[in-house]
Amino acid sequence: MSAPIYLALIHYPVVNKNGLITGSALTNMDLHDIARAGRTFGVKAYYVVTPYEDQKSLAFQIMDHWTHGHGGRVNPARKSALERVRVADSFEAACNDIENEQEQKIVKVATSANSRCATRSCRALGQALRENTPHVLVFGTAWGLAPEVIEQCDHILEPIMGAGSYNHLSVRSAVSIYLDRLINA
Amino acid sequence: MSAPIYLALIHYPVVNKNGLITGSALTNMDLHDIARAGRTFGVKAYYVVTPYEDQKSLAFQIMDHWTHGHGGRVNPARKSALERVRVADSFEAACNDIENEQEQKIVKVATSANSRCATRSCRALGQALRENTPHVLVFGTAWGLAPEVIEQCDHILEPIMGAGSYNHLSVRSAVSIYLDRLINA
Repeated sequence: MSAPIYLALIHYPVVNKNGLITGSALTNMDLHDIARAGRTFGVKAYYVVTPYEDQKSLAFQIMDHWTHGHGGRVNPARKSALERVRVADSFEAACNDIENEQEQKIVKVATSANSRCATRSCRALGQALRENTPHVLVFGTAWGLAPEVIEQCDHILEPIMGAGSYNHLSVRSAVSIYLDRLINA
Repeated sequence: MSAPIYLALIHYPVVNKNGLITGSALTNMDLHDIARAGRTFGVKAYYVVTPYEDQKSLAFQIMDHWTHGHGGRVNPARKSALERVRVADSFEAACNDIENEQEQKIVKVATSANSRCATRSCRALGQALRENTPHVLVFGTAWGLAPEVIEQCDHILEPIMGAGSYNHLSVRSAVSIYLDRLINA
């Protein structure tokens, strides 16, 4: 495994249960669980994407507590996870930031619970990650990524199926399982 | 995959960061995320283990909202996940309940982030699950399972390692990854 991997969690634009474009609120648990999974699987950075000033400010407050504040002093493992969280106004801004850091184009991979649109298996993506092209894995909050985000991506990753047709995993579970499949497969 | 699989999330007895026996508080997110992962991967039931009356009452309140209350009406997928949550006073009580339901002895598998004590690989356990013996996978909250719980188990599952030595996953991530490895491997 040698490709730099980034994560992006989109809070806007996503869809609501009726398929309409919406923005979602940040949750503390998304920051922690996804940062910890990212740190475990060697992710370079995890972008929390939200255009809302109050939500960005909440993200910075949580990050500060765990990196420079009391949280980081009592729990250094948590600090080293939260240090990799970054905040971006939009998916485009996150991608620009990554491309500046990597000094090359990145491959954008959307995730979706809908198997009809999948264009990439975990196996194929895992193989691609063994080459040296940086990738960003993109996850939606609420009922999933808005079409305009998916359209900007190069691939759509196959959904995670379990023992039947039920696939309503939390985004925290989905990120964890995908990383394990891609890195450890 | 034919063996019935159960999950148990232990809130007491677990250890704190100094290795001392403690009890932890229930979290709403543990109930939801683990129930959803369990439902996705065909788990029979997920036991929330706590001896504390106020914590049991909180668990029942959350479960009721999502199974018989408003939550279940607006989100049937969540309802079908939360319906598989059960509450037990102790690990022993959960195991007795499962053995009564299955009418046979169950295999108890502890999980631990410590690789030194592992006695079972995910691959070997995945193979064992293809036979028809019921298993319970046991997870600790706080800093992990107390020794007295681990001693009651038949096996200790290997820890989840990522891209390095860091393995501070949330219990929600760990449950999700183990289920994917065991069911889909």
